[in-house]
Amino acid sequence: MPWTKPHLLDLESLSAEELVEILDTARSFKEVSTRSVKKVPSLRGRVVVNLFYESSTRTSNSFALSAQRLSADTLSFTSSGSSVSKGETLIDTAKNIEAMGVDAFVIRHSAPGAPHLLARHTACSVINAGDGCHEHPTQGLLDIFTIREHFKRDVAQPPSAVLKGLTVSILGDIRHSRVARSNAHGLRKLGARVILAGPPTLVPHAIGKALDVEVMHDIDRVVEESDVLNCLRIQFERKAGSFFPGVSEYAAIYGLNEGRMKHAKPEAIIMHPGPINRGIEITPELADGPRSVILHQVENGMAVRMAVLYLCVGANKAGVKRKA
Amino acid sequence: MPWTKPHLLDLESLSAEELVEILDTARSFKEVSTRSVKKVPSLRGRVVVNLFYESSTRTSNSFALSAQRLSADTLSFTSSGSSVSKGETLIDTAKNIEAMGVDAFVIRHSAPGAPHLLARHTACSVINAGDGCHEHPTQGLLDIFTIREHFKRDVAQPPSAVLKGLTVSILGDIRHSRVARSNAHGLRKLGARVILAGPPTLVPHAIGKALDVEVMHDIDRVVEESDVLNCLRIQFERKAGSFFPGVSEYAAIYGLNEGRMKHAKPEAIIMHPGPINRGIEITPELADGPRSVILHQVENGMAVRMAVLYLCVGANKAGVKRKA
Amino acid sequence: MPWTKPHLLDLESLSAEELVEILDTARSFKEVSTRSVKKVPSLRGRVVVNLFYESSTRTSNSFALSAQRLSADTLSFTSSGSSVSKGETLIDTAKNIEAMGVDAFVIRHSAPGAPHLLARHTACSVINAGDGCHEHPTQGLLDIFTIREHFKRDVAQPPSAVLKGLTVSILGDIRHSRVARSNAHGLRKLGARVILAGPPTLVPHAIGKALDVEVMHDIDRVVEESDVLNCLRIQFERKAGSFFPGVSEYAAIYGLNEGRMKHAKPEAIIMHPGPINRGIEITPELADGPRSVILHQVENGMAVRMAVLYLCVGANKAGVKRKA
Repeated sequence: MPWTKPHLLDLESLSAEELVEILDTARSFKEVSTRSVKKVPSLRGRVVVNLFYESSTRTSNSFALSAQRLSADTLSFTSSGSSVSKGETLIDTAKNIEAMGVDAFVIRHSAPGAPHLLARHTACSVINAGDGCHEHPTQGLLDIFTIREHFKRDVAQPPSAVLKGLTVSILGDIRHSRVARSNAHGLRKLGARVILAGPPTLVPHAIGKALDVEVMHDIDRVVEESDVLNCLRIQFERKAGSFFPGVSEYAAIYGLNEGRMKHAKPEAIIMHPGPINRGIEITPELADGPRSVILHQVENGMAVRMAVLYLCVGANKAGVKRKA
Repeated sequence: MPWTKPHLLDLESLSAEELVEILDTARSFKEVSTRSVKKVPSLRGRVVVNLFYESSTRTSNSFALSAQRLSADTLSFTSSGSSVSKGETLIDTAKNIEAMGVDAFVIRHSAPGAPHLLARHTACSVINAGDGCHEHPTQGLLDIFTIREHFKRDVAQPPSAVLKGLTVSILGDIRHSRVARSNAHGLRKLGARVILAGPPTLVPHAIGKALDVEVMHDIDRVVEESDVLNCLRIQFERKAGSFFPGVSEYAAIYGLNEGRMKHAKPEAIIMHPGPINRGIEITPELADGPRSVILHQVENGMAVRMAVLYLCVGANKAGVKRKA
Repeated sequence: MPWTKPHLLDLESLSAEELVEILDTARSFKEVSTRSVKKVPSLRGRVVVNLFYESSTRTSNSFALSAQRLSADTLSFTSSGSSVSKGETLIDTAKNIEAMGVDAFVIRHSAPGAPHLLARHTACSVINAGDGCHEHPTQGLLDIFTIREHFKRDVAQPPSAVLKGLTVSILGDIRHSRVARSNAHGLRKLGARVILAGPPTLVPHAIGKALDVEVMHDIDRVVEESDVLNCLRIQFERKAGSFFPGVSEYAAIYGLNEGRMKHAKPEAIIMHPGPINRGIEITPELADGPRSVILHQVENGMAVRMAVLYLCVGANKAGVKRKA
């Protein structure tokens, strides 16, 4: 199945076949990052623009490095000190940059749906790098890539059964999490059982219903039943701290620690999108221990982002027509 | 006529022949931006430094992308968080960067004449990207390029007659505008009739005299007589708002809107250097309408900046000698 | 003697042979910066990351430009607006970036020893670009490179005698200076006599003892005896001003000026790591005069940083193994 979409806006609207197409392409790119000359010429002479309305160096650098590894040129527009601070609209800013002859926007914005709006107004490819509490599709994809690789589900099988039989639990601040939403959509399409877990204030039952996944508040039971424990970060900078009495209480009742993990399945793995609050949502021993695949997630993020940029820019007939 | 100047400091000191030389070179570079591999090797191994003492992401990125399209390496020095904040002089900063082995400075500074000062102290090429209320020569050039292209004046003709017979009006905050000054100088040299228009507080007659162009305050008459209406941005961040009673009054009396444009020449075009205050100096309908060439200006800015970097670095014998 | 160290953490732990190996490599790279195409393919496809926890555009750009000149890709992580502001530890940040597939960290940090800590936790090369008041080894190396070149000590001779017979004085705010420490260690290993000079509050005798070099407070005598006068910057941003009564008093008693320099050796040279406080630690006449080699220092900094990146990345067997 050839990839046909010029944009990656969310995982909710992708089919299982499309998800697998990205994951398979990422697998073939993963090898590039292990070479001493870490370059392929796939996007030579193309320009990828980071358009970050929320600050981030980790995700923006991961995208920039992925684009460079494909031999693309990169530009970074941030909202501070730019025309945005002079009151320019998102669409005006983007159309101006587009007119400079660029090929793809990687956008992070606090408003859910901002990437979708942008995609309707530009001939460039648009990649969602996080829109408010909505989605963060490349994070979802790199998490799924890591699960699939770890459990060796990357051999041929029907797309909707790729993760069949695996229970993936997402723990923590689900309420504010675009990562949880992208993961839930993608995991379910590929056949996994998904549990959202954490304190009732941060994991309301309504979210479970909306995403059609299970909700649990008893972390010990979640640990026992899970093949994957994906710990989210408590986002203190988004006032997540006001949803529970205190960090030590949170760590004791909802955090992952060695004692709790004694009851986990032998092969269960621990994930975290970072940055980690060590000692709160997870103990340092677990974060750095043998069950942790946290740094594999980061490594796989490069491969996934290379695949997304490669597929979307390649499929962008509007962009190609404009340039022909 | 071969280009001989190592710097582009202003349009006031250029001859009509020199202006046309840049515009013709830009035309040949314009095609590069339409390729899927948007690169020429003209400045491979050269280094272009953005030295921006006033914040700007749009102009600095346009220069950076132009330089990359010529295969140059680029560096960006901003005044915040740098040796400038430790009290270093402009010349010391520049001579230090020059000693790292760079080829061109693109400088934006709040002090009129800063690029001229820098040019006297460096063996590198100096490109003025805006100096206070003085000049912004590449903006003037890209505006003129766009006019010339639209009215098909790019066939052979005497340089001083390239825009003969065209009336170009510049509307708005002329008092604070380096864009208006660069445009006025360039347009007159190429034979255009130039009108500066707007409220008397922002368009004093003294400016018209100094630039040897007409001044009008009746926008309806200006609209009727013009082939080109170049709307400038009201620079609220420079306190331009204190020169008129209010934005709705400004929009009604001096702004461009559909009603006012009914009396314009059929082929008249609308320009704006951006970012646009939609609904103040121009209505959204006009900004996005068929008369608008605003995004062509941005696109042409790339070609003009490539031409300027290419010509000035190429003509810089001091720089070449230093390196030989 | 082939270079074997994957990191450059300080000059204190290097042997005279190792220092000379870097200096000789830098000499061969110096020629590259004088070409019009200033590129060698030595680190093509490698990634050098600037990880600056203290703001600096001069040093970070010098490293970035050096890396680009070796054809490496570069990334810049700053602490503001990044995961650091979300409370992530240095090691977590670095291991995350490492997982993206990078080859070298250039780190500046306010904590002495931060680069050493990082080197114990990463398979990448680590280059110290300044750690608190501890060391700034590439600044020390470029100063020594400049002295060696000026006094033509770059012909074959025993490493420990390269600077034999030369008296190098370092003047000013020694107490807060990592530059002084790196210089003192490197200069002594290569056989120079080293004097630390300045007001007793900024040059306590304990520092001289710790570094095993001379301490003097009489600047006139220092000037008479020195072949090299390396003036440090008074770091007002680090409250250095509270260690003496006033700047005019400092300039009169401890600053370099033309009157004082009349008693200097005929061939004595003046150095300064910049940015200069003109009129305080040195007069403008001297900074721009014939004895000054200040801009040669900056130029040589490029060659030294290219050499350090080239040698350390090349010697990094852990990094290579990881990638094989």
